[in-house]
Amino acid sequence: MTAEILSVGTELLLGQIANTDAQYLSRHLSALGIAVYRHSVVGDNPGRLQEAFEQALDRSDIVITTGGLGPTMDDLTKETIAQSLGLPLQEHAPSLKAMQDFFAGVGREVTPNNIKQAWFPKGSIVLANERGTAPGCIIESRGKVVIILPGPPRELSWVYENQVVPYLENRTGLKFISCFLRFYGIGESALENEVADLMAAQTNPTIAPYAGSGEVQLRITASAHTTDEAQALIEPVKAQIVRRVGQYLYTDRWSSLAETVVQALLLHKKTIAVAESCTGGMVASALVDYAGVSDSLLLGVVTYSNQSKIDLLGVRRESLEAHGAVSAQTAQQMAEGALRVCGADVAVATTGIAGPGGGTAEKPVGLVYIAVAVRGGQTQVKRYRFARERNYVRHSACLAALDMVRRAIEH
Amino acid sequence: MTAEILSVGTELLLGQIANTDAQYLSRHLSALGIAVYRHSVVGDNPGRLQEAFEQALDRSDIVITTGGLGPTMDDLTKETIAQSLGLPLQEHAPSLKAMQDFFAGVGREVTPNNIKQAWFPKGSIVLANERGTAPGCIIESRGKVVIILPGPPRELSWVYENQVVPYLENRTGLKFISCFLRFYGIGESALENEVADLMAAQTNPTIAPYAGSGEVQLRITASAHTTDEAQALIEPVKAQIVRRVGQYLYTDRWSSLAETVVQALLLHKKTIAVAESCTGGMVASALVDYAGVSDSLLLGVVTYSNQSKIDLLGVRRESLEAHGAVSAQTAQQMAEGALRVCGADVAVATTGIAGPGGGTAEKPVGLVYIAVAVRGGQTQVKRYRFARERNYVRHSACLAALDMVRRAIEH
Repeated sequence: MTAEILSVGTELLLGQIANTDAQYLSRHLSALGIAVYRHSVVGDNPGRLQEAFEQALDRSDIVITTGGLGPTMDDLTKETIAQSLGLPLQEHAPSLKAMQDFFAGVGREVTPNNIKQAWFPKGSIVLANERGTAPGCIIESRGKVVIILPGPPRELSWVYENQVVPYLENRTGLKFISCFLRFYGIGESALENEVADLMAAQTNPTIAPYAGSGEVQLRITASAHTTDEAQALIEPVKAQIVRRVGQYLYTDRWSSLAETVVQALLLHKKTIAVAESCTGGMVASALVDYAGVSDSLLLGVVTYSNQSKIDLLGVRRESLEAHGAVSAQTAQQMAEGALRVCGADVAVATTGIAGPGGGTAEKPVGLVYIAVAVRGGQTQVKRYRFARERNYVRHSACLAALDMVRRAIEH
Repeated sequence: MTAEILSVGTELLLGQIANTDAQYLSRHLSALGIAVYRHSVVGDNPGRLQEAFEQALDRSDIVITTGGLGPTMDDLTKETIAQSLGLPLQEHAPSLKAMQDFFAGVGREVTPNNIKQAWFPKGSIVLANERGTAPGCIIESRGKVVIILPGPPRELSWVYENQVVPYLENRTGLKFISCFLRFYGIGESALENEVADLMAAQTNPTIAPYAGSGEVQLRITASAHTTDEAQALIEPVKAQIVRRVGQYLYTDRWSSLAETVVQALLLHKKTIAVAESCTGGMVASALVDYAGVSDSLLLGVVTYSNQSKIDLLGVRRESLEAHGAVSAQTAQQMAEGALRVCGADVAVATTGIAGPGGGTAEKPVGLVYIAVAVRGGQTQVKRYRFARERNYVRHSACLAALDMVRRAIEH
């Protein structure tokens, strides 16, 4: 099956927002084995929308539209497509009722404008939208499928997951299961090389790299008549990948490296302290993204100046003078000092040259030392060299620090 | 003039990346008064690319392509367009030379694959690319303009700003100047209401809201035969906006709130300390994003636990017990403690309930206290109530803290 995505909204053509809806749908449709051949964006203009819609319907089995379901005069997706397909619009009583209940709940009146959100092309399958007032709909016509979805990303994703996926599964008679493997310490192309033969050989499950957020991921997706059967198809492939590159794998769940570290801290009931120089609060902030961390994070310090490294962490002045702030010695003393100051189980410290200035031949921009101290254990210090600009160096150092913490907790 | 953007890349159709190139170009083209009517995305497939390109060229005055200029067999944008326009490809000696110099600089050989990056459709204006090995090009054909740009965003933006804008200015005989006004403390729709009459009345300069990064911005763009004339058109409109909403304006430059704070710290030669509870390192990290801050940031602490507030900042235990960690008293003592500990000129402290748990009727999720202490001055404490989810609360608190620091330094 082939699909294309037609997004409607002048805000996209003005560049006010990126078309993340098309990205979201493409990513998820490819997991269902549906090939997306084209994205198009048009403004809130019925003539251009109609032209684009009819071209798309000629080319593809499935046309998915996003946006243009709002209550204003500009929102014309359903109206334009209904006209194009020669279908009248009809009121959908359950949608009107849901809208009335929603407005009553927030103490507002349903406006006449809103009422058009409960009208759909005749014969539509209406897709309830728990996150907004604009339901979507599916129209089966001329052997093709038209899926009309709301534009706001959190509404789109809810309607897609809860209404569109079941429809597509039902249509294909298949259930789809995806598993995500997330890696740290191996580059994307190196990972692909390691599993290229599996990727090429497999058709069910499929294996695909999955970019995003600076972390390297693989998606394994299987389809079968039941979810259990699909899961059973995934397991041996997953095991094979883990045998090859398991040393880099940090989770097979949908969680970031920081979240994985927080979960490990809570699971093992470990407290942590973070002492940061070049990362400047980024490691602490990455942990604090996850609510449960309040039981574990005893202390974070951003000791950007030498004086604060001495005052707060007990780094020795002679050592700073002899080896410099960016050195294995400083990183080690920072981590051990952080551990001592608050009595945490584990402490991590970063010190490096984020740039753009401050680099020398001996200590270039991108040089970072990271230390992890563990209560009653030996402090581990690693030297890294990250390339590129300031915030890339800082972000890379943050991930490296998190991975060292994860390994220290889990081993 | 009308334009459309045709992006080429299977990674877009797989949803691995969002089409931020189209967003970038749309935003910038609208500042030049060029209406973008459509975005399209096709994969690395010559047949579909050719179809999409020819449709686009029929419809629009300018077609801008992004992507497909890499060295691999899959990268076929120039080849496909040249064929479509009936133009042979020719080697461009300066591009080949630049590529050879680049590879020599990093100690690598030019591969045969790379050489095709120096071939262009006959009659092209070649657009040098300082940020990569793929130059772009402009082809004038059949009264239309085809602009072929590299896909990686940092290459695209460099080529656009340095090569495409001068070309377009030259073609129109106009210079375009944009000014960005950035606001904190007023919502986007409130701001639009305040200046709606100006936005409606103005055609040169144009005034447009400019979304992005959670901060509220207006863009003022003027065109004239010289940049001085364009600037002169902007000034009175800018002054009128500043008279109305100047109390919320924090910069008329292209810099974030954090960068504005760092610039103010350096300009006024002030040192700063940051003590964070709910923001968990986010304020320090936002400052450390800007390299110059190392002269100013004496200390950051993430005192997430009560004990660390007491130990590091001298918050009084009785006060914590009487008023709680999330209170005006705690925020004030945190800021004053941070000031005292490192002798900074200004200190900022945050404490709040980021959620999702931990809220009560009296102290709901989203309640945040922020204090700014100034050496020899009076500490200011403000109470905020931010809605929505954890990271929105934290991000909002971070911006509020930065704005309070900015006002404390500048006034």
